[in-house]
Amino acid sequence: MPASRLTDTSRLAIHTMTHKPWSLEQCIREYSRAHLPGITVWRNVLAPMGAPAAGKMLRDSGLEVAALVRCGFFPGRDPPARALAMDDNRRAIDEASEIAAPMVVLVCGAVPGMSLPDARKQIRDGIAQLEPLAAERKIKLAIEPLHPMYAADRSAINTMKQAREICQALNSPWVGIACDVYHVWWDPDLETEIRLAGEQKTLFAFHLCDWRVQTRDLLNDRGLMGDGCIPLRTIRGWVEDAGFRGWNEVEIFSTEQWARDQVEYVQRIQRAYLQHC
Amino acid sequence: MPASRLTDTSRLAIHTMTHKPWSLEQCIREYSRAHLPGITVWRNVLAPMGAPAAGKMLRDSGLEVAALVRCGFFPGRDPPARALAMDDNRRAIDEASEIAAPMVVLVCGAVPGMSLPDARKQIRDGIAQLEPLAAERKIKLAIEPLHPMYAADRSAINTMKQAREICQALNSPWVGIACDVYHVWWDPDLETEIRLAGEQKTLFAFHLCDWRVQTRDLLNDRGLMGDGCIPLRTIRGWVEDAGFRGWNEVEIFSTEQWARDQVEYVQRIQRAYLQHC
Repeated sequence: MPASRLTDTSRLAIHTMTHKPWSLEQCIREYSRAHLPGITVWRNVLAPMGAPAAGKMLRDSGLEVAALVRCGFFPGRDPPARALAMDDNRRAIDEASEIAAPMVVLVCGAVPGMSLPDARKQIRDGIAQLEPLAAERKIKLAIEPLHPMYAADRSAINTMKQAREICQALNSPWVGIACDVYHVWWDPDLETEIRLAGEQKTLFAFHLCDWRVQTRDLLNDRGLMGDGCIPLRTIRGWVEDAGFRGWNEVEIFSTEQWARDQVEYVQRIQRAYLQHC
Repeated sequence: MPASRLTDTSRLAIHTMTHKPWSLEQCIREYSRAHLPGITVWRNVLAPMGAPAAGKMLRDSGLEVAALVRCGFFPGRDPPARALAMDDNRRAIDEASEIAAPMVVLVCGAVPGMSLPDARKQIRDGIAQLEPLAAERKIKLAIEPLHPMYAADRSAINTMKQAREICQALNSPWVGIACDVYHVWWDPDLETEIRLAGEQKTLFAFHLCDWRVQTRDLLNDRGLMGDGCIPLRTIRGWVEDAGFRGWNEVEIFSTEQWARDQVEYVQRIQRAYLQHC
């Protein structure tokens, strides 16, 4: 059963990358002006001011931080490369604490030329290594399976099932899954895996956008909800049936949208969210 | 274990679409000149002369036809649309007979806006409907799972597992799978599924190319073998361990390669095949 229609934006959080032309300050100002309750902060907009200043600005705004995006990138060609990634992951957990983000989203990584089984093993090992710090700081680690078209160079974790297997192996309340419709909508096992994630308390995040027909670019041609073919309300129904009550996060990379009026885009996102999700 | 290195081109067949600028006549002339044994014929190059004339030209050439590509496209918005597709599929089986192709490759189809479960049901029903004619004419139907990035509009069958489930349901010696590395290389279950297909005698075809890092276009930026990240020899090892002894078919859609000298490209394909597959 599709979920019933959304009647308000009380669970809507927008990823700052959705408004790539904006600084964190601009995102905070415009999302607040639109009376949006949540924000998902990307690290590129933290960098210019640093996490402590960003944290203060976010607290002052009253916006709630849904998550910090992104870290991970565990596989590396040699131990020093992997250690560098791990240092960065620890910094991300520090940053999440400083901006009161309850979780970090893991883009797990892949290295062209490295075999996928090797990359997948390094990912499991890396998450296991990061978990104690995450538990200590009470920051959730949300494994985001990426679409198989990113398996070569962005993430060797490409299905909900793979993410579930890592969660089951680590069996920590701090390790779960970020389910982004863009990456997983095609998966014949999606409904089953969402249900399992609910049962296993690992459904940490839910990301919304749409899959454009035709997609013109592998990375930056995501659609605004309703501009594509993903059955958004159906999937939200599965997610809510699985017990998820967290943020509905809008994450859209779109060269086309970034070229348009960004303030008006905040309005269009809200309308699309209410109409199509 | 990766397969041992190929030492000759005795199992190499090239898809005519790999040389898109060429007519069937040019493909036949140049593949024959290169002493290649096999050819996989796309229907677009049959159309100008018709299958009977093409069949004669192919027989005269001595080239063996690995397969006819492609038909399928089962889902349709209404019964007349599906009936039209079925008529075309029957014609494809006639054409395969006329050019002595032992199989047709099924691109199963998807309709933007139709739910994937509906499309998948129509695909199963469509293959079931086509199977008796295929059996009568002794033409194999090879289900080709397409990469998940094509789920919206080209094929709702996106994994070897889905293809296997259709094969198991129909349980016909005339229904099997075309395994194209481009579509399935990322799948964590690939080795298992190839083994199962071997056990179930459904591994009908094996297609080669490579996945470019970065891929610049969703459709026409496939790589020549060695120009990407797919572990071709490892996958060929799995396929041969599963008992496959058929053609190694090279199928590359590449705007970049199509713009270059096509005769010289035949040579480069052979070198890449021997070096990387």
